Amino acid sequence: MSEFEEPIERLIEYFRGLPGVGKKTAQRYAFYILEGNKERAQNFAKAIVEVKEKVRLCSECGNYSASEVCPICSKRNKKVICVVQEPKDIVSMEKIKSFDGVYHVLFGCINPLENKGPNDIRIKELLSRVSKYEVQEVIMATNPDVEGEATAMYIAKVLKPLGVKVTRLAQGIAMGSDIEFADEITLEKALRARQEI
Amino acid sequence: MSEFEEPIERLIEYFRGLPGVGKKTAQRYAFYILEGNKERAQNFAKAIVEVKEKVRLCSECGNYSASEVCPICSKRNKKVICVVQEPKDIVSMEKIKSFDGVYHVLFGCINPLENKGPNDIRIKELLSRVSKYEVQEVIMATNPDVEGEATAMYIAKVLKPLGVKVTRLAQGIAMGSDIEFADEITLEKALRARQEI
Repeated sequence: MSEFEEPIERLIEYFRGLPGVGKKTAQRYAFYILEGNKERAQNFAKAIVEVKEKVRLCSECGNYSASEVCPICSKRNKKVICVVQEPKDIVSMEKIKSFDGVYHVLFGCINPLENKGPNDIRIKELLSRVSKYEVQEVIMATNPDVEGEATAMYIAKVLKPLGVKVTRLAQGIAMGSDIEFADEITLEKALRARQEI
Repeated sequence: MSEFEEPIERLIEYFRGLPGVGKKTAQRYAFYILEGNKERAQNFAKAIVEVKEKVRLCSECGNYSASEVCPICSKRNKKVICVVQEPKDIVSMEKIKSFDGVYHVLFGCINPLENKGPNDIRIKELLSRVSKYEVQEVIMATNPDVEGEATAMYIAKVLKPLGVKVTRLAQGIAMGSDIEFADEITLEKALRARQEI
């Protein structure tokens, strides 16, 4: 006999799948649902389903968006593109508030150990945006680790022939850390001190 | 403009409702859903809905159950009842493994500050079980705090006239702590050293 009834056990398993959630925490979450309001649980479930149904990738930048083109791409300066590895990096960058350009999500970086080459991340899309909108500057905000650096260098190399200025966030960000978890002040300093590659 | 698109914002809000989850953690959970497999997200949502649809309260003990009578009540010794405040306390008690009686969930305890009297918790149901199954012993496993103690004393008083032995988990459990978080060894010692009230 397992510890919980089957539907409870199953829900605990799904909660355990969330990042950083262990057995005890997953049990607490499941009991919260069990103890809580039924309608609220149904709405919670609906929110999970709808986030997958209604949210797609912005056709310009690749960030999660509820519309064909995301609010950032439709309103801001298309001449300056900040390139990030993941959508969550945009959340951190947006905290600066003073950046008025757009973003480009690579969805990863060049990583030979994971068999990820230049064709496996959204570099082709970046190149066509650069040509299409006569982009003046591409700011590389990939993570400050070996793979992120290599990716920034590679992209700088392929963009140079197009006559676009390619810069890199200043190394105010500690090596080996993660853009997602950087604080706003460090990020703002890094943005201001960006260097041409 | 809010930080995220509406469906994402909504999902983050639901995750924030989970116990102990702050803004950053809720964002991580939402991005995990966004990044993940669609079918898995649908099954996750289904698990939340089904846990509310399929799980009811056992008609005997009041614990969460997928059937009319829970597996513990249908298989084990009905002559010994261990009384707990919440279903999650049963999870902790079951870790002992040597207890072969059944449980009774009060869903709270007598708490004048929260306007909860004897009629607001499942004491009436306990009395009818005691009569129906000629129960020999009722073990009080309410929390070792003021309200839990008062509830144990009250129940002991109303059960005495029925000629049933009422015991209390030994105070091996630290005062002011919570049954839910006690370790198995402490709980087992407390079970063995239980004292008649």
